[in-house]
Formats: sequence, structure tokens, C-alpha cells
Amino acid sequence: MKKVVITGLLLVSSFFAQAQLPDPGFSIDERTAIVITDPQNDFFSETGKGWGIFKESIQKNQTKEHIEQIFKAANEKNMLVFVSPHYYYKHDHQWHFEGPVEKMMHVNGMFERTNPIREEHFEGSGADWYTPFKKYISGDNFIVTSPHKIFGPETNDLVLQLRKRKIDKVVLIGMAANLCSESHLRELLEQGFETAVIFDATAGAIIKEANIDAPEAALTNFRMLAGKVYQTRDFLKELSKLPVIKKN
Amino acid sequence: MKKVVITGLLLVSSFFAQAQLPDPGFSIDERTAIVITDPQNDFFSETGKGWGIFKESIQKNQTKEHIEQIFKAANEKNMLVFVSPHYYYKHDHQWHFEGPVEKMMHVNGMFERTNPIREEHFEGSGADWYTPFKKYISGDNFIVTSPHKIFGPETNDLVLQLRKRKIDKVVLIGMAANLCSESHLRELLEQGFETAVIFDATAGAIIKEANIDAPEAALTNFRMLAGKVYQTRDFLKELSKLPVIKKN
Amino acid sequence: MKKVVITGLLLVSSFFAQAQLPDPGFSIDERTAIVITDPQNDFFSETGKGWGIFKESIQKNQTKEHIEQIFKAANEKNMLVFVSPHYYYKHDHQWHFEGPVEKMMHVNGMFERTNPIREEHFEGSGADWYTPFKKYISGDNFIVTSPHKIFGPETNDLVLQLRKRKIDKVVLIGMAANLCSESHLRELLEQGFETAVIFDATAGAIIKEANIDAPEAALTNFRMLAGKVYQTRDFLKELSKLPVIKKN
Amino acid sequence: MKKVVITGLLLVSSFFAQAQLPDPGFSIDERTAIVITDPQNDFFSETGKGWGIFKESIQKNQTKEHIEQIFKAANEKNMLVFVSPHYYYKHDHQWHFEGPVEKMMHVNGMFERTNPIREEHFEGSGADWYTPFKKYISGDNFIVTSPHKIFGPETNDLVLQLRKRKIDKVVLIGMAANLCSESHLRELLEQGFETAVIFDATAGAIIKEANIDAPEAALTNFRMLAGKVYQTRDFLKELSKLPVIKKN
Repeated sequence: MKKVVITGLLLVSSFFAQAQLPDPGFSIDERTAIVITDPQNDFFSETGKGWGIFKESIQKNQTKEHIEQIFKAANEKNMLVFVSPHYYYKHDHQWHFEGPVEKMMHVNGMFERTNPIREEHFEGSGADWYTPFKKYISGDNFIVTSPHKIFGPETNDLVLQLRKRKIDKVVLIGMAANLCSESHLRELLEQGFETAVIFDATAGAIIKEANIDAPEAALTNFRMLAGKVYQTRDFLKELSKLPVIKKN
Repeated sequence: MKKVVITGLLLVSSFFAQAQLPDPGFSIDERTAIVITDPQNDFFSETGKGWGIFKESIQKNQTKEHIEQIFKAANEKNMLVFVSPHYYYKHDHQWHFEGPVEKMMHVNGMFERTNPIREEHFEGSGADWYTPFKKYISGDNFIVTSPHKIFGPETNDLVLQLRKRKIDKVVLIGMAANLCSESHLRELLEQGFETAVIFDATAGAIIKEANIDAPEAALTNFRMLAGKVYQTRDFLKELSKLPVIKKN
Repeated sequence: MKKVVITGLLLVSSFFAQAQLPDPGFSIDERTAIVITDPQNDFFSETGKGWGIFKESIQKNQTKEHIEQIFKAANEKNMLVFVSPHYYYKHDHQWHFEGPVEKMMHVNGMFERTNPIREEHFEGSGADWYTPFKKYISGDNFIVTSPHKIFGPETNDLVLQLRKRKIDKVVLIGMAANLCSESHLRELLEQGFETAVIFDATAGAIIKEANIDAPEAALTNFRMLAGKVYQTRDFLKELSKLPVIKKN
Repeated sequence: MKKVVITGLLLVSSFFAQAQLPDPGFSIDERTAIVITDPQNDFFSETGKGWGIFKESIQKNQTKEHIEQIFKAANEKNMLVFVSPHYYYKHDHQWHFEGPVEKMMHVNGMFERTNPIREEHFEGSGADWYTPFKKYISGDNFIVTSPHKIFGPETNDLVLQLRKRKIDKVVLIGMAANLCSESHLRELLEQGFETAVIFDATAGAIIKEANIDAPEAALTNFRMLAGKVYQTRDFLKELSKLPVIKKN
């Protein structure tokens, strides 16, 4: 896997050089925002329910460190950050059918909250923000949407919240690479946003015995779908050149 | 207005009798659910911010009494009731543009909550459930979705919550007739649900000096769009004949 | 009705003057486009299947003349015009359920085409463009989307076609006022567009014996929902001041 | 790659056996339909513009043969088949931005049609049905939707056409595995359908020099997302046991 991912990233340039896929171009401006999916304990905390199958990818990509770097840099430029969380309420356990990962999340009790109003049992739970991210997410340029309920933003207000602030370019980060990140990417494409992904600010499940290498699948698709696949350092370099965005 | 509404309802039969619009048929069964929009203090409480322009229609239609009757009857039959609320968070005040009613709601501070997680200041606020409805909404067959953010369910998980329980027919009640009720009706039509409305379990704004008779506008559209426009007593009669629905 | 419409429009100012509904503001710019629904024979031709119930409103509003004036003015400014048509194919007659107006359209054979590919029997049919509009719609700044299948653009590519050209404000015209025009308005609001309607470039069904005055219902809702309700002459005056839009 | 795909399929059982991902269950019934994406010359014909990068996977999976077998079996059972095609019109070349594969399709002139109405130059073009499939697609139980414009059905009427016939389970086949097939799968999940994929009735791009193995990425995601991943022979065996579906 290590070889594949590195190769994958290195190949982005030679890939386009061969003109097998044209480079559509993407650049950040004052109508660009960050979209992060699921910056929650169940993915990032070592006691989170997903840690077992995500830690390898999180550690290799240095996902946590990269997300913090991106949050800091976004704050310096007044760039908006939209947070699309994953919450399951008690009533979601009434569903008549689910896919495999949906079922797994329900069986494991991932992202559990009581209901859409009550706050009880939330603080520090698997559904709560990963602690080091909290100070950023409470900031004025962070907008927390309603939860997505499967993997994409079709079931929440992310698209509206972006459009109501005249954002038409998005840069995706967060979890999980081939699930919520990719479903957000695909839906935002269908909704007519210009899109990019920062690959090493995402991470995915690696389950060797089941032949699952989710980050590799995600990378293949990101490269074919998104306007640009960044590495964090390249994104930060580009962002550093952007003037501070005037607050509306 | 009184004349118009009564005439409107009485005319439903002669209307179809003239074959100007065919009667498409609608009947309730075990795959039917109630959908209620905005059963919240800002509409129903006499101290609510909308009471001034909604009370005339609420009183004439006996909307509160009808909603309670429908909730009770639904409970007896194990019929699911989906509650689609209206909440505005602090960050929604950052929006760059709005329509007239959106702006009015924001200026008046209707349906205000702190954010999607915090419960502070919620109890008894304009965004909270109207007190007489609370005991029903906390029941097992009530599903509270994420908030809609404009008027329709495009920005929440209502459609998914219905489909995940194999519901494909909906009966709409709630507030406000030509705004959230009608936008929910229109979106559920586009999503391929069979639809009905119980007209006297809705209500709308009446602002005579501005030539606004919203319930009349809603009734015209409900009659042209929905599979059936019920009066509460007719709906209750039909529901009483339905066997108790087996819980999944 | 005439009195009502005039009153309705005149009242917009006093309405806002009373601060019952704030004026959200709307102005046209280079990211604004016209969206027209159903400029087809079945509405506008005197042999069209809808003429009987729409002619009164079309004639009173001078809808045809206004649409042509708007098309001409849009051409002079290179303003894009998106055309969202209504087509029914043979397979749509397999649907298991419909609303009243849907059923009426199917029974009457409105907007019929063979299928999404074949052109046979299309020229001059009820589904074809109204003849005086054809020379405009074939122009370079007109984009014809896939058909909507109920009343709104949820089932076609209108939103994507707008976004792919960086349009984020729309001005709605066309047919029928409270059906496709209004469902397009409502969906575009949910999708985060700034919206306006030119009321006298729309028209609706008037069926006195059934107590249906659809334009009046539409006007009530347009005034509460849209960023602005124009009359054609006011729209044309504002458009005349806009510089010619540079083609991309 | 060969090893990986075979391993992937063989591992489906051991995968679930390890209970790392629970098996959510999926079975076909009278409310199940086939959904096929892009059964068009540009993918399947040896002169099609995509053949160069798709032939390896099409040949290995025996995609063409499997699709024909599935079409035949569906016909015998009166199972509905929904065809979601890919068409690009002249006006789509005005888009201001695209992703890499979108740009590639536009540059290569894939799936080109004149416009949504004209039939000229269509017969036998890259956008036309692959010839051996034509006799099936013209049948009564095949419903051809409007084209999708990016990769998913968000921009066409597929969901509505399914719901209007009370279909709530779908089995996906067609092209391209990780692009339109997968975006259809993801959107149908969000819309609350029960979903399955027949993996060897799909195919994807393999571009070794660019490190792209799209079928492998698709398989990883199908296994995590869909209710079931079939092989054609297993699907046919299950379908053979289903009684002939009564026509509505």
C-alpha cells in the first residue's frame, strides 16, 4: 500500500503529462471554502470505535496534524470551513435496511446521539469533536451543518450553507476517504461546485485480511473526479499567497 | 376569506364532477405516514412571534385541535409521524441574501437555536415544540428530522427517514400552509411519494392590509397538486377503518 | 382578478412600508440568467391543449408579448436564457399514481413526445416550442435543459447547467404560474439561488366554476418567496442599464 | 489486477465470515428493478472512443455477454430495466469548469448529441446504444431516462421513474464501474433504495502507466456500500427462482 499511495501521488504529474487525462485546473480564491467531514472522536480518538481500522492510514497520512495545519491557515485568511458531521439518533436504529458499512456503524454504536435536540451524553462521546479540533470548530468562520445520515450531503444543509455565502469552490478534507469524503465530493460535483481534495488530510480503512485498502480506492477516484488532488504542503503554499478574505 | 375557503372545500367534489381535473385517488395504508412541519411555539403559542399573522387562520381552521386529534389517532394505529422542524442557528444570520419571508423570520428571531448541538435556551423558546404537542412528539412512533432551512425538506433527512422505513405515501399537516407545508408537498411529489394534505390541520398568514390570504393560495395549490385534500374529520374516519399497523 | 393583480403589485410597496415583510433586495448583474418554463404550444398556441383554461390569464398579462420582449432584451445583453421544457413520453403513462394536474395532463395528452431520442411527430406538436419563440430558442445564448417531469427542476439538469456557467441569480418567466414556475422558484430557493419572478411574463389557469384562480395564488406566493416580483416594463428598464455581458 | 479482482470476489464470503462488516442482506422481489448506466457505443463498440482504456476490463469481466444474459432474464420475468444514458450536447461545451474525466470526455467528443430534441447524426454514433443491446432497450419493460450530465442521477429523472412504479430495490450494472455506476449507487443509497451491484456486468478503465485500476477501486467501494455484490451467475440463479412479475 505504501508504495501504491506514494506512486499514486507522484504519478499525478506524469499522469497528466501523458495527456491521458487532461488537467482541468483549480485554484483557490475568495469564493473557496474548506469542507471537512466527520472530525469526530470515533475516527480520531484512540478510544474511538473506528480507530482500529483507521489508525494505519491516519498515522501514515499524518491526517490529524494536516487538519490542524489547514484549520490554522484557514483562520489566518478568514477562509470559511464547513463541518459536516455524522450523527446517529436512536430512531435511526429503526431503519428497515442498510448497506454493510451502515450496518457496521449501527452495530458498533458509532456517532451516537440521543436525538437532534438533547445534548445529554454528548460531551466527550464518539460523536463529539476530536478534542484538539474543538478550539477551531467553535470559531466564527466555522459553520457546522446538520448531520449527513448516509455518506453524502444530500440529507443535510451543506450545499445551501455554501451557496448562501456565495461559495462555489470547495476543498475537501476529513473522514473517511472513500466513504463520506468521496460521497461529499461526488454530490458537490453534481451540484456544480468546483472541487479539490487534500489527500493527506483524509484517511481510510485498511483491513488487510478482507482485502480492503480504502485510501487507495479513494485516491483512484479523487484523481479522476476532482479538479485537483492536493498534498497538504502544496495547499498551504498556495493558500499562503491568497490575500486575507474580507468578512461579509 | 371564510366564504372562499368553505366554497373551496365544498367545490372539490363538483370540481372533479366537472371532469376539469380528474380525481387521482389516494387512500391510507400501512405504508402511509403523517408529516408535520413546524409544530413549534413561534406558530402556535400566543406568545410566539408568528401568532399575530397566523392566529386568524389557526382559530378558523381549529388547527391545534385537529393536530391533536390526528396525533392521537395515529398513535392508536401505530402510524408513524415525521416531524420536520424549522431551526435557525446563529451562523444562519451570515447569509448573504434571503427572500422576504426568510428575511422576516431572521429579523424577528423566529425559530432561533444556538447551534445544532447546544440545548441551552431551547426549552420553552419559540423554536421548542408547542407544549400541548410535546407528549406526542416524545413518543416512539414520532421521528424528528433535522431542520429544514428554507421551506422544503431538500435540506434535511426527511425523505431518507421515510424511505428507510418503506413509507411511500404521506399525509401533510402543520405550518405554514403555503410556505413549509406546500414546499414539503411539492418536494415529496418530485421525490415520487403519493401525497395528501389535511387542509384544516394547516394554517397560513392572513395580512389583509397587504392583500395576503395565504391559506387561500395554499388551498388552490393543494387541490391541483396533492392526491387528496382531506378535512380532518374525513381523514379520521378513513384512518379509523385501517387495521393497527404492525411494528417493524 | 385584474383588480387583485394590480392591487397586489401596487401593494408591494405599502406592504414593505408597513415592515410586515422586509424587502430583501434583488438586482440583475452578469451572473444573472433568465429561466423560462414550458414555452410550448400546449400553453401558448390557440390549438394547444391548455389554451382553454390559460387564455384568459395569458391575454390579460400579455404574457406572449412580454416573453418576446424579454427574449429580445436578453439577446442584446448576451444574458443567458435557460429553457426548462415539459415532455411526457409513452413510458410515463405507466406511472402507478399521479396528482390531479398530472393526471389531467396525461389524460389530455399534453406535451407528448415519443421518447427521449426520437424526433418523429415532434415538429408542430403540443410539445414543440410556440412558433414565435422558435427563432430565439435556437440562439446561442439559449440553453435547453432536459425536461422536468412533475413541476420542478429536481428531475432535470437545470441547476447544474446554471452552476456550470457560474450563474447564481435567476429571473423566472413562463408557464404555468403556480405550477412549474412556482415549483422552479421554490427549488431554486432551496438550492441557494437569488431569485426573482416577472409576474406578467407568466400566466395561470383560471377556472371560475371550480373556484380556481391560479395566478392569484401564484402572486401571493411569489411575493412571499422571491427576492423581487417584477413587472416586465420594470425588468426591461433595469436590464437596459446593464452593460453587455462578456461571453465566456 | 487479475489476482486482485478474483481475490476480491472470493473474499466477499470470508470477509463477512469475519464479521468485520456485517452482511446486511438483499434479495430480489417484484419491487426490484435493474438500472443500467451508459450501454452505449463509446464504451462497448470497438470503434468507441472509450474502448482503448475499457476493453481490458470489459473482456475480463465478459461485461457484454453478462449484460445480454441479464437483459434476457429480466425480460422473461417482466422485471423493469431503467437505462440512464450519458449524452453531451453542444451547449455543454460552454461549461466554465470540469473535472479530469469530464474534460477528457468533452475533449474526446464522447456521447455527443446535437441537442435534447434533434435526432440527426445520432444513429450509430458513439452516443447510440451498442447494437446488440438495441433490441432489448426498445422493449416495453425498458425505461430510458433523461441523460445524466456528470456521473450520477441527480441531473435526470431516474429516481422519479423508479418511484412512480413503486420500485424500491435496484440492481446496478453497466459503465463505468467507478464513475457512473458508483455515482448512481451512491445517490440511490442517499435516496433510500436498497441496492446491489452485479460486479462482472460492469467494467472500468485500466491505465497501467498512470496507476489507474478503476475496477479495483469500484469493487472496494461496492463491497462497503451496496447491500450485495453479485456475480452474474449468482444473480441469474436467484432471479430464476422469482415468479414472473405481474404487469401493472
